[in-house]
Amino acid sequence: MKAERICIIGGGGRLWTIQFLKDLAYNRDTHGTVVLYDRDGEAARNNVAVARRIMAVNGAVGRFTVTSEEELGKALDGCTLIIISIEPGSTELRRGDLLLSEEYGILQSVGDTTGPGGIMRARRAIPLFVEFAAAIARHCPEAWVINYTNPMTLCTAALHAGFPAVKALGCCHEVFHTQDFLAERVSAWFSVPRPDRRQITVDLTGINHFTFVTAATWEGHDLMARLREDLQDPHLFDDRTAVAKKRLAGEQWFDCDQLIALSFLRDFGALGAAGDRHLAEFVPWYLQSDEELHRYGVIRTPYSWRERQAAEKRAKVFTDSELKAEKSDEEGVDIMCALAGGPSLRTNINRPNEGQVSYLPKGRIVESNGVIMRDSIRPIMAGDPPLAIQNLVRHASDVQQMTLDAVRAGDDELLFSAFLSDPLMTLSRSRARELFDRMLDACSLKY
Amino acid sequence: MKAERICIIGGGGRLWTIQFLKDLAYNRDTHGTVVLYDRDGEAARNNVAVARRIMAVNGAVGRFTVTSEEELGKALDGCTLIIISIEPGSTELRRGDLLLSEEYGILQSVGDTTGPGGIMRARRAIPLFVEFAAAIARHCPEAWVINYTNPMTLCTAALHAGFPAVKALGCCHEVFHTQDFLAERVSAWFSVPRPDRRQITVDLTGINHFTFVTAATWEGHDLMARLREDLQDPHLFDDRTAVAKKRLAGEQWFDCDQLIALSFLRDFGALGAAGDRHLAEFVPWYLQSDEELHRYGVIRTPYSWRERQAAEKRAKVFTDSELKAEKSDEEGVDIMCALAGGPSLRTNINRPNEGQVSYLPKGRIVESNGVIMRDSIRPIMAGDPPLAIQNLVRHASDVQQMTLDAVRAGDDELLFSAFLSDPLMTLSRSRARELFDRMLDACSLKY
Amino acid sequence: MKAERICIIGGGGRLWTIQFLKDLAYNRDTHGTVVLYDRDGEAARNNVAVARRIMAVNGAVGRFTVTSEEELGKALDGCTLIIISIEPGSTELRRGDLLLSEEYGILQSVGDTTGPGGIMRARRAIPLFVEFAAAIARHCPEAWVINYTNPMTLCTAALHAGFPAVKALGCCHEVFHTQDFLAERVSAWFSVPRPDRRQITVDLTGINHFTFVTAATWEGHDLMARLREDLQDPHLFDDRTAVAKKRLAGEQWFDCDQLIALSFLRDFGALGAAGDRHLAEFVPWYLQSDEELHRYGVIRTPYSWRERQAAEKRAKVFTDSELKAEKSDEEGVDIMCALAGGPSLRTNINRPNEGQVSYLPKGRIVESNGVIMRDSIRPIMAGDPPLAIQNLVRHASDVQQMTLDAVRAGDDELLFSAFLSDPLMTLSRSRARELFDRMLDACSLKY
Amino acid sequence: MKAERICIIGGGGRLWTIQFLKDLAYNRDTHGTVVLYDRDGEAARNNVAVARRIMAVNGAVGRFTVTSEEELGKALDGCTLIIISIEPGSTELRRGDLLLSEEYGILQSVGDTTGPGGIMRARRAIPLFVEFAAAIARHCPEAWVINYTNPMTLCTAALHAGFPAVKALGCCHEVFHTQDFLAERVSAWFSVPRPDRRQITVDLTGINHFTFVTAATWEGHDLMARLREDLQDPHLFDDRTAVAKKRLAGEQWFDCDQLIALSFLRDFGALGAAGDRHLAEFVPWYLQSDEELHRYGVIRTPYSWRERQAAEKRAKVFTDSELKAEKSDEEGVDIMCALAGGPSLRTNINRPNEGQVSYLPKGRIVESNGVIMRDSIRPIMAGDPPLAIQNLVRHASDVQQMTLDAVRAGDDELLFSAFLSDPLMTLSRSRARELFDRMLDACSLKY
Repeated sequence: MKAERICIIGGGGRLWTIQFLKDLAYNRDTHGTVVLYDRDGEAARNNVAVARRIMAVNGAVGRFTVTSEEELGKALDGCTLIIISIEPGSTELRRGDLLLSEEYGILQSVGDTTGPGGIMRARRAIPLFVEFAAAIARHCPEAWVINYTNPMTLCTAALHAGFPAVKALGCCHEVFHTQDFLAERVSAWFSVPRPDRRQITVDLTGINHFTFVTAATWEGHDLMARLREDLQDPHLFDDRTAVAKKRLAGEQWFDCDQLIALSFLRDFGALGAAGDRHLAEFVPWYLQSDEELHRYGVIRTPYSWRERQAAEKRAKVFTDSELKAEKSDEEGVDIMCALAGGPSLRTNINRPNEGQVSYLPKGRIVESNGVIMRDSIRPIMAGDPPLAIQNLVRHASDVQQMTLDAVRAGDDELLFSAFLSDPLMTLSRSRARELFDRMLDACSLKY
Repeated sequence: MKAERICIIGGGGRLWTIQFLKDLAYNRDTHGTVVLYDRDGEAARNNVAVARRIMAVNGAVGRFTVTSEEELGKALDGCTLIIISIEPGSTELRRGDLLLSEEYGILQSVGDTTGPGGIMRARRAIPLFVEFAAAIARHCPEAWVINYTNPMTLCTAALHAGFPAVKALGCCHEVFHTQDFLAERVSAWFSVPRPDRRQITVDLTGINHFTFVTAATWEGHDLMARLREDLQDPHLFDDRTAVAKKRLAGEQWFDCDQLIALSFLRDFGALGAAGDRHLAEFVPWYLQSDEELHRYGVIRTPYSWRERQAAEKRAKVFTDSELKAEKSDEEGVDIMCALAGGPSLRTNINRPNEGQVSYLPKGRIVESNGVIMRDSIRPIMAGDPPLAIQNLVRHASDVQQMTLDAVRAGDDELLFSAFLSDPLMTLSRSRARELFDRMLDACSLKY
Repeated sequence: MKAERICIIGGGGRLWTIQFLKDLAYNRDTHGTVVLYDRDGEAARNNVAVARRIMAVNGAVGRFTVTSEEELGKALDGCTLIIISIEPGSTELRRGDLLLSEEYGILQSVGDTTGPGGIMRARRAIPLFVEFAAAIARHCPEAWVINYTNPMTLCTAALHAGFPAVKALGCCHEVFHTQDFLAERVSAWFSVPRPDRRQITVDLTGINHFTFVTAATWEGHDLMARLREDLQDPHLFDDRTAVAKKRLAGEQWFDCDQLIALSFLRDFGALGAAGDRHLAEFVPWYLQSDEELHRYGVIRTPYSWRERQAAEKRAKVFTDSELKAEKSDEEGVDIMCALAGGPSLRTNINRPNEGQVSYLPKGRIVESNGVIMRDSIRPIMAGDPPLAIQNLVRHASDVQQMTLDAVRAGDDELLFSAFLSDPLMTLSRSRARELFDRMLDACSLKY
Repeated sequence: MKAERICIIGGGGRLWTIQFLKDLAYNRDTHGTVVLYDRDGEAARNNVAVARRIMAVNGAVGRFTVTSEEELGKALDGCTLIIISIEPGSTELRRGDLLLSEEYGILQSVGDTTGPGGIMRARRAIPLFVEFAAAIARHCPEAWVINYTNPMTLCTAALHAGFPAVKALGCCHEVFHTQDFLAERVSAWFSVPRPDRRQITVDLTGINHFTFVTAATWEGHDLMARLREDLQDPHLFDDRTAVAKKRLAGEQWFDCDQLIALSFLRDFGALGAAGDRHLAEFVPWYLQSDEELHRYGVIRTPYSWRERQAAEKRAKVFTDSELKAEKSDEEGVDIMCALAGGPSLRTNINRPNEGQVSYLPKGRIVESNGVIMRDSIRPIMAGDPPLAIQNLVRHASDVQQMTLDAVRAGDDELLFSAFLSDPLMTLSRSRARELFDRMLDACSLKY
């Protein structure tokens, strides 16, 4: 395979960047250069040192050279692949995203994708991604771009808005967790060891973090039929407040039992294919109160923890064993290899709708399965979910489109259209407007 | 013109039936027979006597013969026109439609179109309209059918579901009131006497009671531009609680200042084209509480008044002067004449979507302008409203379609999909389910 | 009504210009200024003198002032209405349009709309109309534009391509003739005097000169059913060569019996709504030879006659009685009045597809019914014709779109795609290419 | 893997059946039963003997049991896979398909897919496939069905018309040949050994035998760009009559140089992805005469050879070495294994359009890439070809749809709509009708 030149935008990050570098070191088929770029130049430079340790620890020295660049243009020059994983604005700005709406009774379990928090975050992120796209158009228009940043859909959409010919996709592991959940169930249903998630074939449709499984098989068995049988169990939806309390005590923010995912299957006919904490944010019924949310075993990630974690990540000193690569569940390096001509890959991708999601307009960024081949990604047609699911997804996608249009036009009145239309926005119009004005003030980028 | 044979289903009613008969007596161009049919045969028979007085008072004796029929098939035989204006189930059932959801904090200002009340009413009405359609297919497949019954969209949709070749339309005067409102404004803006509403040309799009004006002109003046100037007035949306209190005291349930209609223009870019009491029911922001609603000068019609009014209507004795016709604002007779070959008519109609509303699927019942000609109705393409409006209307139309599908399939689990998806349904899922089950019990037809 | 300022582009013409001025003089409701503009300035100036005689003869002096302008920008300044009726390139260029393809066995009865001749004419016309559009955008962007020039569809499309916000429509009287034909049949079927064509209601769909009637009524009678009965007559399609010979002798180029129009009804299920000489050019089956064409009573207009007629028109001296106005059948002035706020008009129009023709892409210029109101034109949804008709119309519309794209891009290789795809192009590929290259050479504008 | 029960309808055939059985014997992963069914029971029984020899020669005895059945229902009972490869009507009927239209100057190089011959063949085949579908619905509704019969599109469409839930696909090797052609070119361009066709990734769109490649890569190289360079060679399209003559002499009916496929690339912007003899039949430009066709090096298969070949196939005695399996290029067995849970397969398939071909209506049978997985086939979105290609394909697909509708309705007048609309039908209307009536008479099934 040819040498890659990979630019990581947000290369100063301590999570995705490190993980990606480890996967790169682990994979034996590629070689080339990695350029770390970060608005926080020092963070990027620090990660160069970590990267070199990763290469050393994994015996990959020589295969990949790692450097940093202060200027975006220089970082992009000659690149074949760009990874984007940034925090749009400082962690401090998320305080406004999350805590202000809480004052008005609007709770968010994540707040980075949808709802008032997601919209404010998008307002910060979209201009950055439009700029990235313009720089890519100038410096490496043929490069492939993988976005990991949330709000995934809108950041990926902003890349396409800024450079329509961009070869970009958005990647997210939430669907993998749904496959893991199904693999767990397979083990129970068929008394077999838990299969690898890739053995669970799913048909997918929707938008990132609000994706749905309409069909799932393992070894030819119809898993949806099995799940529907499970739904007959009168105890399936029993109150899980006790579990939630334990999770709170243990700071297990990301754990869930897919009860909300299953609730969509019960009430609307398709299985939610993201963590419950994401799914809950797209509809008004689950985040009524922490008590209500706890009934499903789901807890909210507190802002204070995010703040603490951000500080810890910055201060983090990695041990060698933390830098030692095993095969992670992330697919970034596999995708890179497939695009470079290695084995093709069928996986869930976020791409402009060419028709693969029949009930959304062309051009919207949608999540469904696709085939990744040498220098080409082709979406696979998704089966249609029940109308009730189409309706919910379309509503969410429309709000995203309004947000994109408003932010690109710099029109905060139009942005209020989106804000008011969000499914979580069940305030009176005047309270909603008050919250909106306060959030505009508190959640804006200040450079 | 040829003799008409008109069947009024719900011919025992004391409002529409009487009004239609007066319009018929007033119009000099038509003649024929009117057959009153009502599930309550006595009410129909009583109205025959009233009808004859109407013909006498208006000098129309001889032009129209009025009879009643006990059997629907006989009533329909040979008909050229059918008017349907019924109450789907007794007034008592509306108690459940309105009062149960109120216990859960879901207020409805009308409750006959959308929201929990509208869905339960639709559940009673749809089977009746499917039956009507089947009878029409058998007895007078070539007849035109005008439906006035709410939920307008779903009753008209049920006619088409029951008999796909039915020549049916739904008629509603709410848009007329929007034209009246604009005529009033024209008078103020241009210092002219208030023009007739027909002088106000509007471009319309949406579904019944949730229709929007995207363009309006009078004598070539762009009225939307004028309204947008009005929106600059900082006092336009001042609190109208005092007005609302007066309206409550005066039992003026139907009065409004179109402030919610204007609020849609302000926030979403198109003017609501129905009374505020209807518009408010399609979104979660206005019916939060009576206090909130009163701020817009809008009040809810109490169930007790409806009960009292139903009793009064039944007991009503008309004076001769009450039966004397003037030109009313209703268009039923004009439509009948246009279909019979009289002057063609351009007006708002509820018809299956052939594409006139670009953002809704084909086949859905939509409200837009149309041309009514001899034995033919052709919809006029509606201009596209902003995406925010498209999104709200599509959401509402999807819930209606789910309701139709569920009721036709007799599938109350599917109906719960619709119920939960309604924009007013901002309860937790479990509370929503509890309400749904109680309403199923309280709001069903019992024959 | 307000004063109009009307610019006639092609104001030196001796046919449409004179007719339009007569209609203007006849109509009592309008007043203002007419500016004649023509690339041939002398022709425009000559027509000013004729125009003044028209106003005098019809007692309209004072209502309309007529002048000419040498410069297009000046002619357009302040205009409220623009009429375009030009000859794209000299009559001499039509020699190539018609006679070259004849050498290859491709006969055309008109050659101004479709086929090799129509494509070459479009290649000359499109850049002119793009220029007109740009000038209108600069000088009078609010003016309405009525195009009468062929190829109607592509000239109107070029206006929209050059200035997307242009308020333009294309008008053509071919559908009127179909109404006249039906009126004639009504007279025979019902033994009544021939009704006015406006009494014949038609539902229309297609593109200019290849439009189809899917429904037609007169006084509630289904005329399509009657026509289908006529089709049972075994002599209906009897050979009309003798009639054709008479027409040839009498130079009655435009006469026809609508046998080809009826042939579409027989074979494909919808009635052609243009003269047979136009309809025949869109399909390969009728213009195989003059002998074949004569069987339908249709004759081709020879180029020599066109040349002679052009010379005669230029030399024409009008008598006063020729300038005296009666109500003509053209609707230009009626449309102008409707747009100015006079009585609204329902008629056939050529406008961008918003969905009124369901089987063609949005944006294509289509012909169907529309409502013309004060400063607004709204298309009426057309009923769908049988698939066979949809297929033929779509094929023709696609070739037009390719032609537009190719000429705008100045790409003659792409234009060859269109040329080869034309239904009349049944030559071998190499012969087709030879003809194309020769026509490019012979049919181009030379300024 | 589970045991398969495979029914071959047309199991008496000597080409596909034998090849499929050899592939089955060659593949080591499957086992089960093969049931041969043929309207000609004796042919099926004879093939049982051949089948057993195949199993013996290939050491596959024990893995597959082969039997025959006289009754279709019995043959289908319990099946997991059905292969259909039949001759719809005797070879003798093809005489009418091909020779009658030749009398009228309409030449066909194959005559089994499109054109007058294809339409008449479809008229015979469609009712048979509707019957097969009904039997499958009754006897093995869960079985997968692979159709190899021509007209591929219409036979596969008829299966879906007869049993909408059928799990069917159509398979054809023409695209493989295009891949082979590209592999050959790759070898020349890059001076490498000819790669396996599976190394050539193509993006595909269209309908069977009229499919187009819009993108092709090998090892990341853009092969379309290379082909466009080839098109610059002024000798590429030099007259190949001499080659054609040699092919005629050698009875090499199926050989071609893809010059017509390349001609589509030159003139319309996408590469034809079927043999020239198929592509030529969908447009009027190549089959003008044998002389014209020979210029492209293409020859027509004469009817006399077909007759002779049919007799030879019936009389054929296989030697052991002819029955020895190697890996053939057909994919039937690979598809079966993929559906049973073996390695998934990305290949070209004929399936109902869910949107994978954006410019054709939903439901039409289209050819594009798809992913075949355990019990599931998902189409891959095809990239859009230039409008000129969309237009040609849509035209052909519309004619197919009209044919399907007409044959299902038993309406030969509607079938004439299709017949006249076929791109090869460049006769006058009256000659076309005469030919149609003669073909109806000569080409019908007589049982």
